[in-house]
Amino acid sequence: MAKYAGARTRPVICFSDVVLFLGGAFMSLILVWSFFSFYSISPNLTVKTNETSAKCSPEIDMKYDPTDPVYYDEPDLTYTIEKPVKNWDEKRRRWLNLHPSFIIGAENRTVMVTGSQSAPCKNPIGDHLLLRFFKNKVDYCRIHGHDIFYSNALLHPKMNSYWAKLPAVKAAMIAHPEAEWIWWVDSDALFTDMDFTPPWHRYKEHNLVVHGWPGVIYNDRSWTALNAGVFHMGNCQWSMELIDTWTGMGPVSPEYAKWGQIQRSIFKDKLFPESDDQTALIYLLYKHREVYYPKIYLEGDFYFEGYWLEIVPGLTNVTERYLEMEREDATLRRRHAEKVSERYAAFREERFLKGERGGKGSKRRPFVTHFTGCQPCSGDHNKMYDGDTCWNGMIKAINFADNQVMRKYGFVHSDLGKTSPLQPLPFDYPDEPW
Amino acid sequence: MAKYAGARTRPVICFSDVVLFLGGAFMSLILVWSFFSFYSISPNLTVKTNETSAKCSPEIDMKYDPTDPVYYDEPDLTYTIEKPVKNWDEKRRRWLNLHPSFIIGAENRTVMVTGSQSAPCKNPIGDHLLLRFFKNKVDYCRIHGHDIFYSNALLHPKMNSYWAKLPAVKAAMIAHPEAEWIWWVDSDALFTDMDFTPPWHRYKEHNLVVHGWPGVIYNDRSWTALNAGVFHMGNCQWSMELIDTWTGMGPVSPEYAKWGQIQRSIFKDKLFPESDDQTALIYLLYKHREVYYPKIYLEGDFYFEGYWLEIVPGLTNVTERYLEMEREDATLRRRHAEKVSERYAAFREERFLKGERGGKGSKRRPFVTHFTGCQPCSGDHNKMYDGDTCWNGMIKAINFADNQVMRKYGFVHSDLGKTSPLQPLPFDYPDEPW
Repeated sequence: MAKYAGARTRPVICFSDVVLFLGGAFMSLILVWSFFSFYSISPNLTVKTNETSAKCSPEIDMKYDPTDPVYYDEPDLTYTIEKPVKNWDEKRRRWLNLHPSFIIGAENRTVMVTGSQSAPCKNPIGDHLLLRFFKNKVDYCRIHGHDIFYSNALLHPKMNSYWAKLPAVKAAMIAHPEAEWIWWVDSDALFTDMDFTPPWHRYKEHNLVVHGWPGVIYNDRSWTALNAGVFHMGNCQWSMELIDTWTGMGPVSPEYAKWGQIQRSIFKDKLFPESDDQTALIYLLYKHREVYYPKIYLEGDFYFEGYWLEIVPGLTNVTERYLEMEREDATLRRRHAEKVSERYAAFREERFLKGERGGKGSKRRPFVTHFTGCQPCSGDHNKMYDGDTCWNGMIKAINFADNQVMRKYGFVHSDLGKTSPLQPLPFDYPDEPW
Repeated sequence: MAKYAGARTRPVICFSDVVLFLGGAFMSLILVWSFFSFYSISPNLTVKTNETSAKCSPEIDMKYDPTDPVYYDEPDLTYTIEKPVKNWDEKRRRWLNLHPSFIIGAENRTVMVTGSQSAPCKNPIGDHLLLRFFKNKVDYCRIHGHDIFYSNALLHPKMNSYWAKLPAVKAAMIAHPEAEWIWWVDSDALFTDMDFTPPWHRYKEHNLVVHGWPGVIYNDRSWTALNAGVFHMGNCQWSMELIDTWTGMGPVSPEYAKWGQIQRSIFKDKLFPESDDQTALIYLLYKHREVYYPKIYLEGDFYFEGYWLEIVPGLTNVTERYLEMEREDATLRRRHAEKVSERYAAFREERFLKGERGGKGSKRRPFVTHFTGCQPCSGDHNKMYDGDTCWNGMIKAINFADNQVMRKYGFVHSDLGKTSPLQPLPFDYPDEPW
């Protein structure tokens, strides 16, 4: 073999050649790593399995349930109201760790729970109203991406009426470990601001949110100090224990009659003679302030739940006020997919509603309008209202809310008192006169 | 500088060194590429923006709507039934491309649409039944991740009764560009198999799926050849044109009366004298077979929609059959989060239902039970049934379906005729005798 100048005979691979080769390999690995680092995401929670697919999984995986034991496999754990659940935080966390596709988005994930009695309503239009109230909640949940569960059968034969919500909420907590929050909303409460998302960050140190005022508990000692018909409850051990304590003042308790007496003795304006869930909750805050007050947020800043009687008369003015915002701002008039409604809610918030609180006298639409005292199902409304004021008020509020939904389908109820037919909206409404 | 044996002086980098270096780089790139090929996913649709975040975005982005013009910005496009929509496929595709977070999962994304009249029902229990039927649909959608929209106001004053669905479906198509399918389900149709997902892949060359049989159209010429009360419609231009043609045989058409005559002359068993949506659709398949038959799938293999009268008597047997499967298979007894129900549906399918079709005489639960002829809202049921058979059948079917839901909340209706209270389920049900 002829050798030319510069060539060398190498019967073995020498060290410097290996160094060169590895140097090339290392350099390209550095380049590749830099490229992917630019795009990588690191989840906050520890995941044990499927970490790569969790990072890039576009959706929750409803077809995946590993065989690793979780709390569902514990014979002692029941969904029922009587048996306390222990270590719920650890149980939920383990389930989430084993189902990492549910971790992303977990911190605000909410299941709404509502319900009504199992038998047809005594009020001839009762079920019709309940149906429309349910549709309203389904609309709100669809717009904001929440699941919703309607409970219309008692989970405990004795826990009926306003007590029926507690077993339903507890069962929902256990059935939905992926949910961080359970949002109970009474059947006679309506979402009248489809755009609004409550300021959840405000409540991150709390486990229960209700509409209420501390002064009315501690100074006035009134049973109306908060409303237990709408609450946002963390899916955690603290809440499980609250439910147990709360239930202990209800109809399954051997001391049920005693609790009624205690509540009446402290809260002189209590409406129902027997122990009721709302007064019971106020009682806990009143008597055991140091335990409960730090964890229950009494939201008085906006209509987390609002009294219909003071809200309904103003609805036409609110409609006009919001249309005025839209006449001023072409972005708010822009038609869009229902699924991106939150973008336009944010525009409006930024442009017109910043710093605006939400209660009585506010510029905002009322968030939730609650027809307390109307009793649409039985028809046995509080005698201080006449029935028609209740039913007409409901139709008006339902159509007011529905206008915000139907807007995304191109239609409106131009008369809030008339449900059907709808009127088609012209392009660039409400700028176009029509 | 002393030189040792084997060392050489290299004042320049020589070709073989470069080859070695690049060889190392290339080798490691090959290794890295092989590794990632093993895990790579390539989306089918072309995306123009935000491709990287779409790949790793865990959820749809409801807060993003770019200012690039889309069909919503075209003054000529309306949601109303009278004005045809053109180029809908291009319009939807552009919207999707501008909202890439919606692309992943788009191919099966479905919005369910249902509804009922706007006024209270004449039948005293009518609205109560409608409420329960609506809850049933909401349950099915929650389990399978579909959105649902309830329409209870006419979008066109003349398109009422069974014609009201078309304007609602069209408006929903325009409001939900992210949805590939709109699934219309009548208010009196019930999901009686909460586990079942129709075989959507079977219909990928079609744009409309209904329960029906070609022989009954082309040989028998019967108005019962298909049922227009439950259909799965692609959100596409073909469907927009079908809706236009279909509407053209309805009450807004100047030829409405003529269409009634034409339908009666061909379909001798037609029930309603005037043109109805079901006979109109059969007419299109009959008269213009070459246009419509290739694109409308007549699904006769299972109860895509099933006649209640032949289904309800067998429901107790079906319950027992499914419990028997669970007694045999511990996996099917395993409690789990509602959100992973599809996993257990797949287990049961694999173990017990493979190859099983779904119509009359099948081992399967009936998928959809449709109470045709019962008219729960007006109460004006077909005289061939008595009212109680209808209402009692409905309660039984509703509770049969609800048992599948409540199982995930730890409860059951042990008597299908009795809605409340529920009975708590023991651990390892139904293996534990109780």
